[in-house]
Amino acid sequence: MTIRLRQSSFLGVCVWMLAGVCVCATAQDPSQAAANDEQPTFSIAIHGGAGGNPGAWSDDYKAQRKASLTRAIEQGVALLQAGEPALDVVEAVIRGMEDDEVFNAGRGCVLNEQGEHELDASIMDGASLACGAVASLKTTRHPISLARKVMTDTKHVLLMGSGADLFGQQLGLEQALPEHFQTASQREKWQRWKSAQTDLTSRERLGSSPSDQAYFGTVGCVVLDRQGNLAAGTSTGGLMGKRWGRVGDSPIIGAGNYADNKTCAVSGTGVGEEFIRHSVASDIAARMRYANKPLAEATQATIGILPENCGGVIAVDRAGNIAVEFNTVGMSYATADAVGSLTVKLSREE
Amino acid sequence: MTIRLRQSSFLGVCVWMLAGVCVCATAQDPSQAAANDEQPTFSIAIHGGAGGNPGAWSDDYKAQRKASLTRAIEQGVALLQAGEPALDVVEAVIRGMEDDEVFNAGRGCVLNEQGEHELDASIMDGASLACGAVASLKTTRHPISLARKVMTDTKHVLLMGSGADLFGQQLGLEQALPEHFQTASQREKWQRWKSAQTDLTSRERLGSSPSDQAYFGTVGCVVLDRQGNLAAGTSTGGLMGKRWGRVGDSPIIGAGNYADNKTCAVSGTGVGEEFIRHSVASDIAARMRYANKPLAEATQATIGILPENCGGVIAVDRAGNIAVEFNTVGMSYATADAVGSLTVKLSREE
Repeated sequence: MTIRLRQSSFLGVCVWMLAGVCVCATAQDPSQAAANDEQPTFSIAIHGGAGGNPGAWSDDYKAQRKASLTRAIEQGVALLQAGEPALDVVEAVIRGMEDDEVFNAGRGCVLNEQGEHELDASIMDGASLACGAVASLKTTRHPISLARKVMTDTKHVLLMGSGADLFGQQLGLEQALPEHFQTASQREKWQRWKSAQTDLTSRERLGSSPSDQAYFGTVGCVVLDRQGNLAAGTSTGGLMGKRWGRVGDSPIIGAGNYADNKTCAVSGTGVGEEFIRHSVASDIAARMRYANKPLAEATQATIGILPENCGGVIAVDRAGNIAVEFNTVGMSYATADAVGSLTVKLSREE
Repeated sequence: MTIRLRQSSFLGVCVWMLAGVCVCATAQDPSQAAANDEQPTFSIAIHGGAGGNPGAWSDDYKAQRKASLTRAIEQGVALLQAGEPALDVVEAVIRGMEDDEVFNAGRGCVLNEQGEHELDASIMDGASLACGAVASLKTTRHPISLARKVMTDTKHVLLMGSGADLFGQQLGLEQALPEHFQTASQREKWQRWKSAQTDLTSRERLGSSPSDQAYFGTVGCVVLDRQGNLAAGTSTGGLMGKRWGRVGDSPIIGAGNYADNKTCAVSGTGVGEEFIRHSVASDIAARMRYANKPLAEATQATIGILPENCGGVIAVDRAGNIAVEFNTVGMSYATADAVGSLTVKLSREE
């Protein structure tokens, strides 16, 4: 049930293990590389949400998602090859995914109970532990960029609601109308969801359980750059039909997003409530920090404590190892590194 | 710089150690007590915020704060003696502190940039890891009770803004007018703060640093009940003059609040941004879980990584040990247990 991409210096081979699952071993230790006066390594992983059953998706839709994931990871690789810092890469890649209506973040986001959009994002710098997050945005085109501005231009970490959008407006960040965020496809899905709600009791409408959700849409990006710095970013439109100002794990540092150069960078996707309850992102780092677990073991153990069909994470450590771990049938993700390895998947099989 | 209350079964003595600091050793291991067919133990700690310099406060104000802390801890002790469950005790004690205008939570909260109140709270059940949190409330009289309703009556963890208040209204939770929350004393403080702002550049107004804050007001309660269950709750009005929908650590599970029967229950107070960045509450639990540190050592180590003059925590573990740790001059707190030990302090000296 595990896909891991492990370190194996100077090798770019793919090895099949763990019951037929692909493990690509590519990255190299950056400190070692520097000592050898070689081009330092980099690693990048992105995700486009967990859940759903990609095996049941149309070929067209699968191709569309893979093309979007490929475009995003290739953008990240190009920036990393050019020596761009991890934070810039994370922000740029997620901005692109926020503009891509295939993903539930920025344009193409799901709609809340009232048929409105509410956007959350967070970003964290592994070098300084500086971080920023925003929740329930309505007008800021790129939530990840506003999260970064919270990190760099305020002494705060988390801003939410109209005050957060106002802060973005004051800084001159690009604003967008509802028509930008709300696609015809998502409005149709919302109409179907709304019709189904009339058949539920008020008690059943109180929340959304994993089984209610075909797809936990969120995007994320984790990076080790050539300077040896880690960064993580996450952005989402949240849950279809969410109400009462529900906020999930994406803007919660330590739950859906975390980065620390001493351990790892993590971005999660899934049932946000479980990610908050178990401090998923910082728990992976804590297992590395306090129990000396390697990245793959730490991510596997943390996802192992979550309920079934809950979600997954992408993670990268300071040595460039990449871990991709999920307990849902599907998770859209892509990974790449300095050696040229590239993986783009919608699930273990697809 | 450390005050700790350590386990020492069957003893209720106060010992001076760590450079003249009072350490009250009282609680007993609940499993041991049960095995001996004795009345099981309980432990409780509360805080009323960190920061400020109690040495400079008037005798009247010090007496008022101590009276409020004493009233709150005695209410908790009475409930625990009666065998009430940890969650009920945490909620009841914090409701009382929310109604007490001495504390920055519920009535008596600080005001944001616009002179409005915005209230945050969270609660967590150590037995099940169930948790609930609310942020930026304006009408709900007892934020801690709404946080508990989020935990018990929805599948969500965090609700924020007007949607969260609406949820409370739909459940019939008591609502209150601004006049209830905004006391004359806090309006005066806000006026002084507002006047001082006119002398600042726009850059200086971007946020609030520790040095800007005389007092980080938050209330919290952690409990081990006679059944051996842990619970934690935290409630706050946030930072004076906060803007852009800033939210601190109090409603963030894993940052300002956490409980797990396997490790400990924690409530924090201080610069919320640092508590989020370092996942303070879950970091203490992680040190116990993964590095096998005892509670006192775990809390000391976690507070040790925070910047100076940042804040503090109260914590209790499954054996009934209590830890009180802070790196500010002042922190208002009280602790008590089944043996009858009672400590009420405003700082190490006061």
